[in-house]
Amino acid sequence: MLHDVFTPSVQHVLDIAGIFVFAISGALLAVRKNFDVFGIAVLAEVTALGGGLFRDLVIGAVPPAAFTDLGYFLTPLVAALLVFFLHPQVERTQFAVNVFDAAGLGLFCVAGTTKAYDYGLGLTASATLGLATAVGGGVLRDIVANEVPSLVRWDRDLYAVPAIVGASIVALCLRYDALNGYTTGLAIVTAFVLRLLAMRYHWRAPRAWNRRSAAAEDAA
Amino acid sequence: MLHDVFTPSVQHVLDIAGIFVFAISGALLAVRKNFDVFGIAVLAEVTALGGGLFRDLVIGAVPPAAFTDLGYFLTPLVAALLVFFLHPQVERTQFAVNVFDAAGLGLFCVAGTTKAYDYGLGLTASATLGLATAVGGGVLRDIVANEVPSLVRWDRDLYAVPAIVGASIVALCLRYDALNGYTTGLAIVTAFVLRLLAMRYHWRAPRAWNRRSAAAEDAA
Amino acid sequence: MLHDVFTPSVQHVLDIAGIFVFAISGALLAVRKNFDVFGIAVLAEVTALGGGLFRDLVIGAVPPAAFTDLGYFLTPLVAALLVFFLHPQVERTQFAVNVFDAAGLGLFCVAGTTKAYDYGLGLTASATLGLATAVGGGVLRDIVANEVPSLVRWDRDLYAVPAIVGASIVALCLRYDALNGYTTGLAIVTAFVLRLLAMRYHWRAPRAWNRRSAAAEDAA
Repeated sequence: MLHDVFTPSVQHVLDIAGIFVFAISGALLAVRKNFDVFGIAVLAEVTALGGGLFRDLVIGAVPPAAFTDLGYFLTPLVAALLVFFLHPQVERTQFAVNVFDAAGLGLFCVAGTTKAYDYGLGLTASATLGLATAVGGGVLRDIVANEVPSLVRWDRDLYAVPAIVGASIVALCLRYDALNGYTTGLAIVTAFVLRLLAMRYHWRAPRAWNRRSAAAEDAA
Repeated sequence: MLHDVFTPSVQHVLDIAGIFVFAISGALLAVRKNFDVFGIAVLAEVTALGGGLFRDLVIGAVPPAAFTDLGYFLTPLVAALLVFFLHPQVERTQFAVNVFDAAGLGLFCVAGTTKAYDYGLGLTASATLGLATAVGGGVLRDIVANEVPSLVRWDRDLYAVPAIVGASIVALCLRYDALNGYTTGLAIVTAFVLRLLAMRYHWRAPRAWNRRSAAAEDAA
Repeated sequence: MLHDVFTPSVQHVLDIAGIFVFAISGALLAVRKNFDVFGIAVLAEVTALGGGLFRDLVIGAVPPAAFTDLGYFLTPLVAALLVFFLHPQVERTQFAVNVFDAAGLGLFCVAGTTKAYDYGLGLTASATLGLATAVGGGVLRDIVANEVPSLVRWDRDLYAVPAIVGASIVALCLRYDALNGYTTGLAIVTAFVLRLLAMRYHWRAPRAWNRRSAAAEDAA
């Protein structure tokens, strides 16, 4: 679908850009966790490719794109090297990294939904896999780094909601046969802007009602 | 096989019931870990569908049932919402939740073994996948929540053994061509009752012989 | 490819040996973490079969070898029982275990690369999957045990590099059509010896340049 919308090379450049910024976020966490250079590379690869790899295994697209497109595999290594040598400078550009990460989130939730639908999944399943494509790499990153996934922590700005909205827009467009370059771009931009707003205004998701004890606060 | 034994709708109702109670256990852990509402939903989905997803990927049943049956996907969300709004009440019914979880364990180990065998795997591999279907979701739940899996902890009541027994009964019946409604029911009930007894009498599995130091006790 | 090189039975014996020593390392960690007997068995299976399982899912070789070859499944259980009853004696032979683990590393990186190439993947992807086959089980072991993976920790002797070198030798030989019994053996032995040297001389990989604070040292 997207292939009708964007030319393959535009699509590919956007994919690589998304992979690159996700890899940067993985490599930065690896440096913060004091991993060695291989740990940095592993975490960059896992963060950048994990979500798409999960989607491809589920829809039966084997071997997954992560293993058939050399650019997908090499991009995280470039990001890892960059962070390895220049991480204080990269951390100083944390704002830019966050903006790119938001762009990656928007792109991946849309691309993931479209690819799953192309492989014959239903609309709800496709949107779910779009969400999984966008956030899966970050969850795997945190699991490998032995941390509670940032995605599920209450004290982090909204991350899932922008991806859910983007994936849902695509699913609705597919349902009403209205997916084209404009609506695809709209879905990407909506998710991107929502994530930027969530970071700017520190939007957070609620925790369970009626939590009985404040002790849980510390245990989290 | 099971499809010959139970009518599809009975089978489906049992599946949904098992998914629901597993999802409740995931959602409750998420509340205890102080996750936000998305964390609760993620942990409910992972716990309820993780074991079957792993089984389906291994046997090549793609896309997995978790992504083709809308009921499988929506049920954990209902469980997550219920826990989100009513978790003190749900926790007060912990005993009921445990009983249903035991029922889910019995059902999933039997259904998992049968499905793997239907896909051409050997008896031992089928029983192993039955076990993985029953306990896999819980292991994934604990990994995402950044805890040592309850399954492998020595200070938890037996959980694997009932599932192993249930899966083995099914495998033996398949071996001797004796799988029917009665033997299937027997396998489910046996696993269910064994798990209830393990909880009632706090049956535990032994740790390694000749552990040299009690210091390990604290480190666990 | 390897099947042309070694007779199937030699290949199978080497596979089982590699699985056995990886399982020992998983079982020993389970004992150290104070898991019960099922935890020991689970960690032995995950460590021994996890890397190959990941490779087989990625290349679409389903059901994976871990579920079709009974020997692959039973070997880790034997290792788990051995460690369960005799772990002080097994720990006393830690040096021997390490040597065997190095042999497993060499064998698995070569076998993984060859199998991925046989399934039509490119040279870089094949070498990457060879690396993943060799180190994947250990990463999964540490994730299930809720530890930071040994692979990415800066204070552990080089583990990835020997596997990368072994897999790269195989990929180069495949590229220049020079894979035969001698070059396969050379790749295995090179990875094996490099890992032994890394342990003997405590070779370590560098961490990121310009780390600003020594505080990270403690947080690791």
